[in-house]
Amino acid sequence: MRDFSTDHHWLSINTATLRRQSGQEVALDLIMDQCAARGVRAISPWRDQVAAVGIDKVARQLKALDIELSGYCRGGFYPAADAAGLRAALDDNRRAIDEAKTLNAPCLVLVVGALPGALQGKPAYKDITRARGEVRDGIAVSLEYARSVGMPLAIEPLHPMQAAERACINTLEQALDLCDELDPLPTGEYGQGQLAGAPASLGVALDVYHCWWDPKLQQQIVRAGQGSASRLLAYHVCDWLAPTRDLLNDRGMMGDGVVELRKLRGWVEDAGYAGYSEVEIFSTLDWWQRSGEDTLATCIERHRSVV
Amino acid sequence: MRDFSTDHHWLSINTATLRRQSGQEVALDLIMDQCAARGVRAISPWRDQVAAVGIDKVARQLKALDIELSGYCRGGFYPAADAAGLRAALDDNRRAIDEAKTLNAPCLVLVVGALPGALQGKPAYKDITRARGEVRDGIAVSLEYARSVGMPLAIEPLHPMQAAERACINTLEQALDLCDELDPLPTGEYGQGQLAGAPASLGVALDVYHCWWDPKLQQQIVRAGQGSASRLLAYHVCDWLAPTRDLLNDRGMMGDGVVELRKLRGWVEDAGYAGYSEVEIFSTLDWWQRSGEDTLATCIERHRSVV
Repeated sequence: MRDFSTDHHWLSINTATLRRQSGQEVALDLIMDQCAARGVRAISPWRDQVAAVGIDKVARQLKALDIELSGYCRGGFYPAADAAGLRAALDDNRRAIDEAKTLNAPCLVLVVGALPGALQGKPAYKDITRARGEVRDGIAVSLEYARSVGMPLAIEPLHPMQAAERACINTLEQALDLCDELDPLPTGEYGQGQLAGAPASLGVALDVYHCWWDPKLQQQIVRAGQGSASRLLAYHVCDWLAPTRDLLNDRGMMGDGVVELRKLRGWVEDAGYAGYSEVEIFSTLDWWQRSGEDTLATCIERHRSVV
Repeated sequence: MRDFSTDHHWLSINTATLRRQSGQEVALDLIMDQCAARGVRAISPWRDQVAAVGIDKVARQLKALDIELSGYCRGGFYPAADAAGLRAALDDNRRAIDEAKTLNAPCLVLVVGALPGALQGKPAYKDITRARGEVRDGIAVSLEYARSVGMPLAIEPLHPMQAAERACINTLEQALDLCDELDPLPTGEYGQGQLAGAPASLGVALDVYHCWWDPKLQQQIVRAGQGSASRLLAYHVCDWLAPTRDLLNDRGMMGDGVVELRKLRGWVEDAGYAGYSEVEIFSTLDWWQRSGEDTLATCIERHRSVV
């Protein structure tokens, strides 16, 4: 297991973590400067943050600051109330893949979507099996394009408490089943193996917040690392607070909750993961009220001491 | 599938649903009278409600009103910070089994517990695998006593969002794995089969609120109904609201959320379940603010129209 205690070489900042500072929205260009000033080598930005600054400007700034991406947030949200909605989702995912390519991201993270309209409190239907089918069909289409441009897609299983509104893929096992269905490993069927350790075309973004509770987590992490191409495309950390006061925006700083962070990182590294540990904290009540300097300094300290 | 549309013969009221009426705590004896007045044939009371009235008085009142139990809430909470805590939990579960017997409950529902102290915001440890081991060992002890007095134990898998504080058994598959480990089906090993359809000594209380999102739900319900004794000891309904505003006390009335209630009841009935549909709603912001008459009338109406 890698030693994180002496530096933050493998720390990435998901820019949602610094999206609000002292209660105010902060633009991505400033966030990137803050990260660079603290020696952070990688970030994972959100599409709306990139769009607000302008993608070409973001690309130039990344290059000037020598910052790379650990992922790009996010594609997905496939299910829709009607055929026009499904087409619009596919088009939007194609644009997200292009943007990820422009920014040289190692993967596009997919929050796959769930019951259409539920996020607005008006689900168009309740059939989660139908939503899962639409997700499968949608990813299949995106995957064809993503392969053609060389952009791996990382399905992020979301916590079951977000199954109605945000993602109907809720366990690592379920995500890997879908990977195996849509992207059979490149030995055998395709006749041409990828390099060992190369990323699969379709894999997962594993976030400890969503998956820490899962009794099959270790078993499925082992599974994700098997095969000639790894399914482990990204690794996200924060912490689960007890009590948790909100179903979306009450994530904890690493070390402040109940997740066994060292144990889980051990599992993903044993399975071959050697990339960034990406901090993604949504925190209306706490961290988004603090200064960016405070939040960033704490991320770095906790990365070294508890991640 | 049974037709619920013309009566509420198979409706049970979990008395937490009526615990607060118009914002005020209401005693169990009054709740039982309210249920009897509306022709409700079964309830599932909580230990603290029973203790407040007195168990002998409750037993007499149940008999006088011709109301039976669909379950007794609840045993469990096995994990503890130390050996004394573990012993205390075992003693308390033995008392819960005795109370369930006194009230002639068909099963004692187990909310198994999780990280000790987490419910108070101070987890004694973070190792959920350890907590799961303590749960297994604790249930094994309780089961021996429960068998000796003939009281089935029903493990209730709780939603993963309650994995830190309330229950570290979070999927039906995980609960059934534990049932199979501690209570191998009574053919073979014990040499003496139970009657087909008889309850297993150890089974599950399936609550749609906790399990609706699970991609393996149907598969595991089928599994629960297999074997010479059924693991399906209780079936709880309410609804999952989108959005959900609180991780514990924002359950919805049946029909107001996204759970496919008819489909799920079809699955459990296909698996052999023929008991009550028990309404369990914790609702600080909505139903606990309404009158008991309103809540009870709505439970009855929705039982007929959407369950």
